[in-house]
Amino acid sequence: MTRPDKRAPDALRPVTIETGLQRNPEGSVLYRCGGTSVLISASLEDGAPRWMDTPGHGWLTAEYQMHPRCNPRRQHREGRRGSIGGRTAEIQRLIGRALRSCVALEDLGDRTITIDCDVLDADGGTRTASVTGGFVALAIALDRLVKDGSVRTGILRTPIAAISVGLLKDAPILDLCYLEDRDAEVDLNVVGTGDGAFVEVQGTAEGAPVPRAQLDAMLDLALGAMPELIASQKAALESVGVNLDRLLEKP
Amino acid sequence: MTRPDKRAPDALRPVTIETGLQRNPEGSVLYRCGGTSVLISASLEDGAPRWMDTPGHGWLTAEYQMHPRCNPRRQHREGRRGSIGGRTAEIQRLIGRALRSCVALEDLGDRTITIDCDVLDADGGTRTASVTGGFVALAIALDRLVKDGSVRTGILRTPIAAISVGLLKDAPILDLCYLEDRDAEVDLNVVGTGDGAFVEVQGTAEGAPVPRAQLDAMLDLALGAMPELIASQKAALESVGVNLDRLLEKP
Amino acid sequence: MTRPDKRAPDALRPVTIETGLQRNPEGSVLYRCGGTSVLISASLEDGAPRWMDTPGHGWLTAEYQMHPRCNPRRQHREGRRGSIGGRTAEIQRLIGRALRSCVALEDLGDRTITIDCDVLDADGGTRTASVTGGFVALAIALDRLVKDGSVRTGILRTPIAAISVGLLKDAPILDLCYLEDRDAEVDLNVVGTGDGAFVEVQGTAEGAPVPRAQLDAMLDLALGAMPELIASQKAALESVGVNLDRLLEKP
Amino acid sequence: MTRPDKRAPDALRPVTIETGLQRNPEGSVLYRCGGTSVLISASLEDGAPRWMDTPGHGWLTAEYQMHPRCNPRRQHREGRRGSIGGRTAEIQRLIGRALRSCVALEDLGDRTITIDCDVLDADGGTRTASVTGGFVALAIALDRLVKDGSVRTGILRTPIAAISVGLLKDAPILDLCYLEDRDAEVDLNVVGTGDGAFVEVQGTAEGAPVPRAQLDAMLDLALGAMPELIASQKAALESVGVNLDRLLEKP
Amino acid sequence: MTRPDKRAPDALRPVTIETGLQRNPEGSVLYRCGGTSVLISASLEDGAPRWMDTPGHGWLTAEYQMHPRCNPRRQHREGRRGSIGGRTAEIQRLIGRALRSCVALEDLGDRTITIDCDVLDADGGTRTASVTGGFVALAIALDRLVKDGSVRTGILRTPIAAISVGLLKDAPILDLCYLEDRDAEVDLNVVGTGDGAFVEVQGTAEGAPVPRAQLDAMLDLALGAMPELIASQKAALESVGVNLDRLLEKP
Amino acid sequence: MTRPDKRAPDALRPVTIETGLQRNPEGSVLYRCGGTSVLISASLEDGAPRWMDTPGHGWLTAEYQMHPRCNPRRQHREGRRGSIGGRTAEIQRLIGRALRSCVALEDLGDRTITIDCDVLDADGGTRTASVTGGFVALAIALDRLVKDGSVRTGILRTPIAAISVGLLKDAPILDLCYLEDRDAEVDLNVVGTGDGAFVEVQGTAEGAPVPRAQLDAMLDLALGAMPELIASQKAALESVGVNLDRLLEKP
Repeated sequence: MTRPDKRAPDALRPVTIETGLQRNPEGSVLYRCGGTSVLISASLEDGAPRWMDTPGHGWLTAEYQMHPRCNPRRQHREGRRGSIGGRTAEIQRLIGRALRSCVALEDLGDRTITIDCDVLDADGGTRTASVTGGFVALAIALDRLVKDGSVRTGILRTPIAAISVGLLKDAPILDLCYLEDRDAEVDLNVVGTGDGAFVEVQGTAEGAPVPRAQLDAMLDLALGAMPELIASQKAALESVGVNLDRLLEKP
Repeated sequence: MTRPDKRAPDALRPVTIETGLQRNPEGSVLYRCGGTSVLISASLEDGAPRWMDTPGHGWLTAEYQMHPRCNPRRQHREGRRGSIGGRTAEIQRLIGRALRSCVALEDLGDRTITIDCDVLDADGGTRTASVTGGFVALAIALDRLVKDGSVRTGILRTPIAAISVGLLKDAPILDLCYLEDRDAEVDLNVVGTGDGAFVEVQGTAEGAPVPRAQLDAMLDLALGAMPELIASQKAALESVGVNLDRLLEKP
Repeated sequence: MTRPDKRAPDALRPVTIETGLQRNPEGSVLYRCGGTSVLISASLEDGAPRWMDTPGHGWLTAEYQMHPRCNPRRQHREGRRGSIGGRTAEIQRLIGRALRSCVALEDLGDRTITIDCDVLDADGGTRTASVTGGFVALAIALDRLVKDGSVRTGILRTPIAAISVGLLKDAPILDLCYLEDRDAEVDLNVVGTGDGAFVEVQGTAEGAPVPRAQLDAMLDLALGAMPELIASQKAALESVGVNLDRLLEKP
Repeated sequence: MTRPDKRAPDALRPVTIETGLQRNPEGSVLYRCGGTSVLISASLEDGAPRWMDTPGHGWLTAEYQMHPRCNPRRQHREGRRGSIGGRTAEIQRLIGRALRSCVALEDLGDRTITIDCDVLDADGGTRTASVTGGFVALAIALDRLVKDGSVRTGILRTPIAAISVGLLKDAPILDLCYLEDRDAEVDLNVVGTGDGAFVEVQGTAEGAPVPRAQLDAMLDLALGAMPELIASQKAALESVGVNLDRLLEKP
Repeated sequence: MTRPDKRAPDALRPVTIETGLQRNPEGSVLYRCGGTSVLISASLEDGAPRWMDTPGHGWLTAEYQMHPRCNPRRQHREGRRGSIGGRTAEIQRLIGRALRSCVALEDLGDRTITIDCDVLDADGGTRTASVTGGFVALAIALDRLVKDGSVRTGILRTPIAAISVGLLKDAPILDLCYLEDRDAEVDLNVVGTGDGAFVEVQGTAEGAPVPRAQLDAMLDLALGAMPELIASQKAALESVGVNLDRLLEKP
Repeated sequence: MTRPDKRAPDALRPVTIETGLQRNPEGSVLYRCGGTSVLISASLEDGAPRWMDTPGHGWLTAEYQMHPRCNPRRQHREGRRGSIGGRTAEIQRLIGRALRSCVALEDLGDRTITIDCDVLDADGGTRTASVTGGFVALAIALDRLVKDGSVRTGILRTPIAAISVGLLKDAPILDLCYLEDRDAEVDLNVVGTGDGAFVEVQGTAEGAPVPRAQLDAMLDLALGAMPELIASQKAALESVGVNLDRLLEKP
């Protein structure tokens, strides 16, 4: 089986992480992997949501939106005709949960962080790109708070990244592009850390149920890719003067 | 660690499956597990959705709704104030995907099956109850089509069931009630078959990332419960004259 | 003229009132009359609506919803596509007005009672079933408040029930099923007390205007049915330990 | 008991019916009774609603809206914030049902008549003003169709009018203004014909249930007012060259 | 080129300004110009909008709505199916901006003035009619405040009026009716004062771009009409006892 | 008076026009002027809107949206809570009208062009940036159609650009940044051609009415800037191989 872009089954698409495209957000990232690009901003606001009743604790939430022309055919601008769809709701909840797990919210103070993910081009993997790129935007924003003394180092608990794996003709492949995603028998999205632990696992057998051994192989493939993704995040952070290791340091 | 109802870590809550509470649906099930109860109906309609362009193929979709008083405090009736929330959207997409995987849609004819899941009482596990009970409602409805010769036997590919597992103080436990779910460090929902294969896996580490070994232990626990759940389904089906084995038989 | 189920023109359909199907609501009733069944819950909440400016007075409101498969053909789940329809709005306002008339709201304290009426099967008379069954759920919830001393006896002013009457080929008939309702020239819904007084009258001549004498005959028929309906309510209340007479007793 | 404007209990407020305020509608009426005024238009359109499957039959529907400043305090413009409220839905359904009963829809041809009722000033009785004035706008529009030969005479079956009655300190009074309506123990709206028949009856006991004798007295009062209201309609129609008797004549 | 109603290119359509059609608003105006009529009310309310943080300053806002039958064909009642359209939003923002410019909001006190513009018949120029007529309704409402001493004279800064001009076959014409508006190459709306100053200019070349000389000619035409419009306003105000000059007088 | 960035009153902010940030749209532009940046895409679709009844004619429409973090404080993502606001509606209608005036729609064939304008950073002038940058995206998309022979040259009628002018302390200034816009007494947006003709003029006196001479001075200032803006457009087009002069050439 040959992949459309000749990649090995366990190879990632090329990742580029550009920062600062937007001036206003505390963290701004344009994350690209292959034909997918997502514009991500991390915004800091004073005040926690009203439903929280734990003073001094902060919150993090995410919004995800497809640009109407992120696909070969233009689609309606979501939200203009009623409300957001189920897929969008599901994805932005995943991004929010994943990135909340990296932050020591109990020490964030009465702050809300919002991660906005706008998909500019979609070629598979937009939700995992949002998580992986979202981590970079989040770290840039938190670094600012650490540097001005508003929060302690270690407010960021651990780096995380996300990637998709699939099963195509019974063989596991990493980081599916749209064409592969469309044909895959299984679509599994994994959010993980650099040292082999899981933050979120979400997989669906589109066709026949998947034996345990194949699930294991797919989980291995996803976990194996985390160090490379986290290295990309680290490099992007360094380029804007954020030292990830110092940010993670326990105070 | 003792569970609120003294269950063993790998024990299910008592399951009862009542049929026929509603007269109109082709399949009607009231599924209860512990303090959770879900009213489920399977409705058959002629015609596939307009966006499908494969004549002779059918479709299955699901809707999920919390009764405003399924919890200790009454909540707004969802849908009355604009649109459904993200959690509801996410859950009904899961139910639909899971139950679609059981049906040979390509041989269903131009039909749409809708699974309506109305949570009457919520005490944890409402989404997995919807899938496990939804399978029974689905099988009753399909049996009717098989018996009147509208579709072939084997239209139902495999029985599936679903259960939650969690990690509480680092120990895996099965079938969490609300109190356990609230405190669990990980919440993993698994849809599987009777012979150890996966249909859907969806898990989130609410606290610290989860090492691979613990994920494996949780997956084992969930898979181990499938035979007992499927036996309950089979018994409920028998009580209304549906022989699951014959329904599954390849023609 | 013969009725589809051979009933006499002044005969009610068999009524069954099951309690406790839901665990969470203060009052839970499954009301059936013929092929119609309505799941009703009465919920108590602290606090009166914000627009009320009479401290110590309570409020009662109702919501009504058709289950998407309460009819032979599945319908859209109301509220998912915009807002509730005019018929639903009209019916739930009727239920709320009728049940408010039974309660001494000025002595209820700062409380809100919500009556949720979910039609599980619809075969005519769903709004009157909601009122008659709603009274039972309301009485169970109020009895709890009386027994724990939160409100006085007599908080419930009077039992009420509701029934439909119609004119079919110029003859008045009681308690119309769907087929009769569809063909009736007049559809009149009456909410009344056991001793011949009216709480609400709502009637429409679908065809020719109705002479006064026929209106009178229909009102007689409706009023005549109240004692039997109220006896059913009383029996259902007794089965869960609620003595209606004591509840009504002036303190 | 003295009424705010010294009227006798069985006296109507002065009625004026102005026509032609709007140029575009086929029938345009400004109906005033006391401090209430409603702008009503009757619009003819080709084509019946899509859900009707009886070619050659027409339809009539109504919309009702309060002007944001029809009351002493300005209110939100209904419909701008999502959807219309329950009271509006209930009222416009009543207007539509009442006026449909006057028209031989089966001979109207594939046409839809829409009656728009915009309340410019509200001082009680806006729904009955909409019906009584709506009849005039409807007759003007139908007369046009009769005169150009598009439909037969007799397409209008009967004149109808509507009025409210109430019970204030146990005494029945006719045509309540806002202050009376606010204090009334019962609010009954009656749509009737000139010869003592009913089209719609809608009454609610806001306080104690109403004995049969009082309901009868209120119905008498309402029916007694119909001839005077219908005389006003007839005079207004004559002033624009519409002869009501000829319009009603069986062909 | 002959205009449909034989008017000279620089002639206005006949204007009539009727007051008091509605009883409740502080200012009520029915403004007609040719076949266009707009019902306008000015409402005073205590309290400024929550977003204003300048105590003692007031606010003025406008709402605009087409009656569903203001055109030869009935249209949907705006707002009933979702939200208001872009054209309506644009027009009511223009009306609000224009009329805000006449009022010394900083001396109005904590008050909100709402100008409701309901188009009863539309034959071109509904937005400029709303501004010109809205000024009259506003002045009547403010005069009341001045007379009872709530605000100072001079609270009204200057009279304003509005008119449309167009370019038809390269010739500028004033006050376009619908047919002219449909065919015009340019549609320019001007809000101005009586002494040749501009409050708002809004023009679009529907066809070819417009040379500067033609724009100048159109602006001249619009400004030239202001004195006549303001004379109409002044006469209408006098007829209800409002002396415009005294109202404008600096205290 | 000194401007915040020391510019001369008649100086533009630096403009950069980057192309190709998005892969999918037929034309993709990132337009920056000072602190404002707008991501613009031009999408071609087959088929004209349903309401057009002129076969062979095409249509162009625009959508405008502020990114939730284009300002110093994050705002709600527009469209998520019901519908778009009036300001957005007004702006996207302006962009659509302006760009439609450049295209010979009658020769476009049954096509729809959609211009999506997403404001990434807002520092004044976002609507004029959308028009000026939108012209570049449009020209790139049309050039593709011309080059593959789908439409004739000359389909693009004329280049247009847009700019804001204001009056600050009675002196006209060009291309206002946010701080200037906030304080300006007049805000005028002009869409024009390179040879001094107008496509759209939209101006509001926020404070006192503006004498004709000042309006003229502002119009002069705006028109004077068009050649420089159009030169920027031309250069950006050349950099992607689009020769504007040939595209405009009459066939």
